[in-house]
Amino acid sequence: MAQFYQPRISKLNQLILTALAGLPLLAPGDDLTGIILQAMETANLHMQDGDILAIAQKAFSKVENRFVTLSAVIPSPLANEWAQKTGKDPRVVELILAESVEVVRWRLGVMVVAHRLGFVSANAGIDASNVGDAPDEQVLLLPANPDASCAAMQTEILRRTGATVGIIMNDSHGRAWRNGTVGVAIGVAGVPALLDKRGTPDLFGRLLQITQVGMADELAAAASFLMGQANEGLPVIHIRGVDFAPRHSSVQELIRPKEQDMFR
Amino acid sequence: MAQFYQPRISKLNQLILTALAGLPLLAPGDDLTGIILQAMETANLHMQDGDILAIAQKAFSKVENRFVTLSAVIPSPLANEWAQKTGKDPRVVELILAESVEVVRWRLGVMVVAHRLGFVSANAGIDASNVGDAPDEQVLLLPANPDASCAAMQTEILRRTGATVGIIMNDSHGRAWRNGTVGVAIGVAGVPALLDKRGTPDLFGRLLQITQVGMADELAAAASFLMGQANEGLPVIHIRGVDFAPRHSSVQELIRPKEQDMFR
Repeated sequence: MAQFYQPRISKLNQLILTALAGLPLLAPGDDLTGIILQAMETANLHMQDGDILAIAQKAFSKVENRFVTLSAVIPSPLANEWAQKTGKDPRVVELILAESVEVVRWRLGVMVVAHRLGFVSANAGIDASNVGDAPDEQVLLLPANPDASCAAMQTEILRRTGATVGIIMNDSHGRAWRNGTVGVAIGVAGVPALLDKRGTPDLFGRLLQITQVGMADELAAAASFLMGQANEGLPVIHIRGVDFAPRHSSVQELIRPKEQDMFR
Repeated sequence: MAQFYQPRISKLNQLILTALAGLPLLAPGDDLTGIILQAMETANLHMQDGDILAIAQKAFSKVENRFVTLSAVIPSPLANEWAQKTGKDPRVVELILAESVEVVRWRLGVMVVAHRLGFVSANAGIDASNVGDAPDEQVLLLPANPDASCAAMQTEILRRTGATVGIIMNDSHGRAWRNGTVGVAIGVAGVPALLDKRGTPDLFGRLLQITQVGMADELAAAASFLMGQANEGLPVIHIRGVDFAPRHSSVQELIRPKEQDMFR
């Protein structure tokens, strides 16, 4: 295995993202934290205070056994109605509706919903692109509580390594107005989700126009790119070079309250 | 100056972003390419094929002299009407309308518009947060043609260094549904804006659900984060580790046609 660069640079000026290789296929009950720490050791990469791990939602969902066997799902009349309109599998629609609080928009093949966790995305994050008719066909829901999953891992990493790190759970979302998905944060721990720059003077001492930065989303986007580039088998990205004060955080910081949202 | 790491790692598994330090304040007519190459030399960072530069829109706008002196702007009756509704400076509104093709939404202090370049953003990208009443007060428009600005720099870098690189011009946009701005691409050259993964089999040989990735946006988000972290004085980010086949590209790939857009 290639030896990775051990970043020893000053913070602020360089950001280094490393996709951890050699992770096994994940299954319910696996010790994800232990698997990640093992992969870091193999890469000769040592966890330090201020490091961040960005981890694909699917990795958490698998170890948390968020699989649902479709043959066990009985679609409600409402789900059947939506399935008819959208051309989607009624059992998948049943799961989408159960995971959501509102259908924001829909068209053939897509339901854009407000997930029970708050964020707006397609199909409630349920990957069902390849659902067939086999009796054991399964789909994967998002973790029940992504912030809590991240916080548990953060605590576990502190316990096992002594390092205070940040954790970001990322997923890929489509967007209004723009083509292509981008990585976003759907859970965080230890690292600010939203960076409040209100009152920060710019180079000329004037107050900045941009007042709030979607910090965890920007890092999730970078991680998501590297995951996609490496391949779907590298769901964990180690990030070094982020200058942040560890604090309690929640992905809820990134969710615009409906009453302030001009686009739903 | 600190010596930066010279990435020699294999592609695919590591992404290294470096904010170039020591850039002077930029002024109209400045040789931005030369300034960047000088900063790289100072950092002992040598341009290689496949490197990408992500550059803040403001840097291009300044050297391209996209400054407008507000005292010379005469608001139209329509601009005055919008200014009344939104509480914005009528001269700034005049410029926003001139730079836009459609007002998508508005509320006090904000006009969300479709820019003539296609993308939907607040205030047509015109930073006018600190506009005062001084007679020489200026605002900065986006470059006239960001793709062309990027392409010209790409050509110039090839000529001066022999390296075939990608260029991304980034800006920070607000989003529907989510708090906080994130970096997005508003111009590209050489590097794909949108990555088409349709037909790519996943780990299990099934076709991927996510078919198109906003590649330039994901990289712009990472660059934007590092720019903001360093400070507003570091508008150029060097990116190494992206695996891409150079091709003709345009930010238009990222713009969802209005007739396919469910959110305007």
